[in-house]
Amino acid sequence: MTATITAFASSPDRGRGLARDMRVRWAFEEVGQPYDVRLVSFKAMKETAHMRLHPFGQIPTLEDRGIQLFETGAIILHIAERHAGLLPDDAASRARAIAWMFCALNTIEPPIVEREQTRFTEGDKPWHAERVPLMDDRIRTRLRQLSAWLGDRDWLEDVFSAGDLMMVMVLRRAEGTGLIDEFPNLTAYVARAEARPAYQRAYDAQHAVFVAAGDKRR
Amino acid sequence: MTATITAFASSPDRGRGLARDMRVRWAFEEVGQPYDVRLVSFKAMKETAHMRLHPFGQIPTLEDRGIQLFETGAIILHIAERHAGLLPDDAASRARAIAWMFCALNTIEPPIVEREQTRFTEGDKPWHAERVPLMDDRIRTRLRQLSAWLGDRDWLEDVFSAGDLMMVMVLRRAEGTGLIDEFPNLTAYVARAEARPAYQRAYDAQHAVFVAAGDKRR
Repeated sequence: MTATITAFASSPDRGRGLARDMRVRWAFEEVGQPYDVRLVSFKAMKETAHMRLHPFGQIPTLEDRGIQLFETGAIILHIAERHAGLLPDDAASRARAIAWMFCALNTIEPPIVEREQTRFTEGDKPWHAERVPLMDDRIRTRLRQLSAWLGDRDWLEDVFSAGDLMMVMVLRRAEGTGLIDEFPNLTAYVARAEARPAYQRAYDAQHAVFVAAGDKRR
Repeated sequence: MTATITAFASSPDRGRGLARDMRVRWAFEEVGQPYDVRLVSFKAMKETAHMRLHPFGQIPTLEDRGIQLFETGAIILHIAERHAGLLPDDAASRARAIAWMFCALNTIEPPIVEREQTRFTEGDKPWHAERVPLMDDRIRTRLRQLSAWLGDRDWLEDVFSAGDLMMVMVLRRAEGTGLIDEFPNLTAYVARAEARPAYQRAYDAQHAVFVAAGDKRR
């Protein structure tokens, strides 16, 4: 029984791997497990069948032998708990890897997504241009602390983990802001992760969906 | 060996139990485990000794028999995995409880904290008053979906879990906005949680710290 995830039928990121299914695809690739993908349109995401799987009408979801999940963090933890490759074995290191997952999602991602979102929701407001540097400074504060922690390490702790996977994907959400580039060790950290074969397989898989959707639109 | 957490020496919430140590105290009370508290001043939070425990200079942290953790979500998951009372036994229910933890922290909390924070960082800006209804609407969208999911259930799933604990604490962060009151089943849900003896013990413990700090200031 292969697990099934959902992804955008037509991703708003234009296949750049910024939608959250990329995180789950990457996790499956790191642990060497196959997965099926069901594509969902924006319309279907808000309809009853999908809202039963995801109360907030988003992707990804996971269906895996009687387990139904939403929230990328929970899905990746589920995969990491069942297959070797994303969580260290010893209790202390395992707990720290999970701490970095929560950190990525609750400490680093919110100001990054906030900045991204206001471009769409307030981009036409007279105050938007003046707020961008304020939002940038909030992100910068977090990145500075993250950069200080990382130092010259390859990964956030001794070995690559689900914490790095989540952190790298969250940092990628700031692409185009130039903020990550201010911290050379963070830029190198993201590049190091992107060079992993599992990342590349996941990237190619989500990109192929975007290309195929484009074919259909023609 | 009792676990030790950190908390504000002088909480900015004036003892209302909105600081994140309340979440961890409540978790310990639900599983019936004692814990020690080390109080940290705002100054000490940004100094090297604490930043080694918490790379972002915040509270709470956890030190538990060689395990050092930051991020409230990770700390509560650590407690819930080691002691009965916060995660159901069967795999599917356990995974869903964890999904609700992530949901509270990554889907519900960010717009609530954003609104709270801009009061301090942008409260004096000419655009702030006009932005409040925009921020309220974003929160309202999430609350409406959460309310629809909850329906007439007591808890988010069949039994109270760490997911409810986290969700209730996140909803409490919106106190004073009037937004929760728009959804009677969410108001009742928060009240139901606050009536739990474990919640009350945790609340009293953090409130006692605030009262004692006030005594010292006199």
